[in-house]
Amino acid sequence: MFMGASTKEGQDIAVKSREIVRSLISENIKHLNPGEQAIVERIVHSTADPEYAELTKISENFVKESLEAIKAGEDILTDINMVRAGITSYNGEVKCYIDHTLTYQIAREREITRAAAAMEVALQEGFRGMVVIGNSPTSLLKVIELQEKYPDRIKSVVGVPVGFVGAAESKKALQSTAIPHLITVGPKGGTPVAVAAANALINLSKG
Amino acid sequence: MFMGASTKEGQDIAVKSREIVRSLISENIKHLNPGEQAIVERIVHSTADPEYAELTKISENFVKESLEAIKAGEDILTDINMVRAGITSYNGEVKCYIDHTLTYQIAREREITRAAAAMEVALQEGFRGMVVIGNSPTSLLKVIELQEKYPDRIKSVVGVPVGFVGAAESKKALQSTAIPHLITVGPKGGTPVAVAAANALINLSKG
Repeated sequence: MFMGASTKEGQDIAVKSREIVRSLISENIKHLNPGEQAIVERIVHSTADPEYAELTKISENFVKESLEAIKAGEDILTDINMVRAGITSYNGEVKCYIDHTLTYQIAREREITRAAAAMEVALQEGFRGMVVIGNSPTSLLKVIELQEKYPDRIKSVVGVPVGFVGAAESKKALQSTAIPHLITVGPKGGTPVAVAAANALINLSKG
Repeated sequence: MFMGASTKEGQDIAVKSREIVRSLISENIKHLNPGEQAIVERIVHSTADPEYAELTKISENFVKESLEAIKAGEDILTDINMVRAGITSYNGEVKCYIDHTLTYQIAREREITRAAAAMEVALQEGFRGMVVIGNSPTSLLKVIELQEKYPDRIKSVVGVPVGFVGAAESKKALQSTAIPHLITVGPKGGTPVAVAAANALINLSKG
């Protein structure tokens, strides 16, 4: 498995793609350590958008804490099923509570988004590990809030929600916490960015 | 359900987002018909990337043919599970054959990608309807090839694979066919673009 490719043709494409990615962004990421570089390269490979080399910001302890959680086989928690569906090579469990009965109930009662309610349900159900948020700003804000109630359960956060309303602010809020994190500055981000970061970390954990 | 939001907070965010999207791209999409505008607006809403207003190209018969397939309840076929996971409000079936036993077998025997092999399996299994490709150029090229073998089975194609190797060429190839299509010019595209186009069409079919 290289950059998500499992067949010969897929691997050939991935190898060529990595060369192109490196030619485009190597200057922008030379200040990063090798683990961080691998993550940013994979994000640019997955989005075909070199701008992510500049938008992606990784906290100092993010790679270390994320790899510890992954190597320990702890759960990965996602905000929506699309992100879960993209994290395909993890030996542990990838969970998403957006369709959980309790999630619908909390969202309705408190008039919050299901993606936010799903984070509460996950922590109630005993979640511990890395959180990967690719879509919902309200979900990310909820994680930051829950971190105070459940210290030590959220090991790291890939926080790359997308959108013109609230996404940039939610990522700024995450940046101001002590939670080990990866974010993208501004409105851009999304499920492929989230999935690329998670899959790059899973790959690093095996190497 | 408005722009994918099912709760009050979600809907408030979607309404604000639509205003911002319109302020950013209304000039670029004023030549499109209302159905096409709705699709492009949703793509920009989902990606927070106004560039898609210019990159998205829709063939004349695409909306009509896609809506016919959707209203008839025909299957939607996706290249990867991430795309399937994002198409959440369709009353018909959304299918993906990438994990099918036959797909693994064909990919191995012919040294092609699983995403391409999965298209063959789908057509062998009787698929008929709209195809939504958000990731794999080889999958899109295979659909174009299969169209000749199975005329009238592929009603329309959302063809927005992403990547620096082969994606732009595969979309150009689709543009040169008579298949009703939506593409994004160049390397950019991806699962959120594919999902946004499909969900916008599903929404249009209900309105």
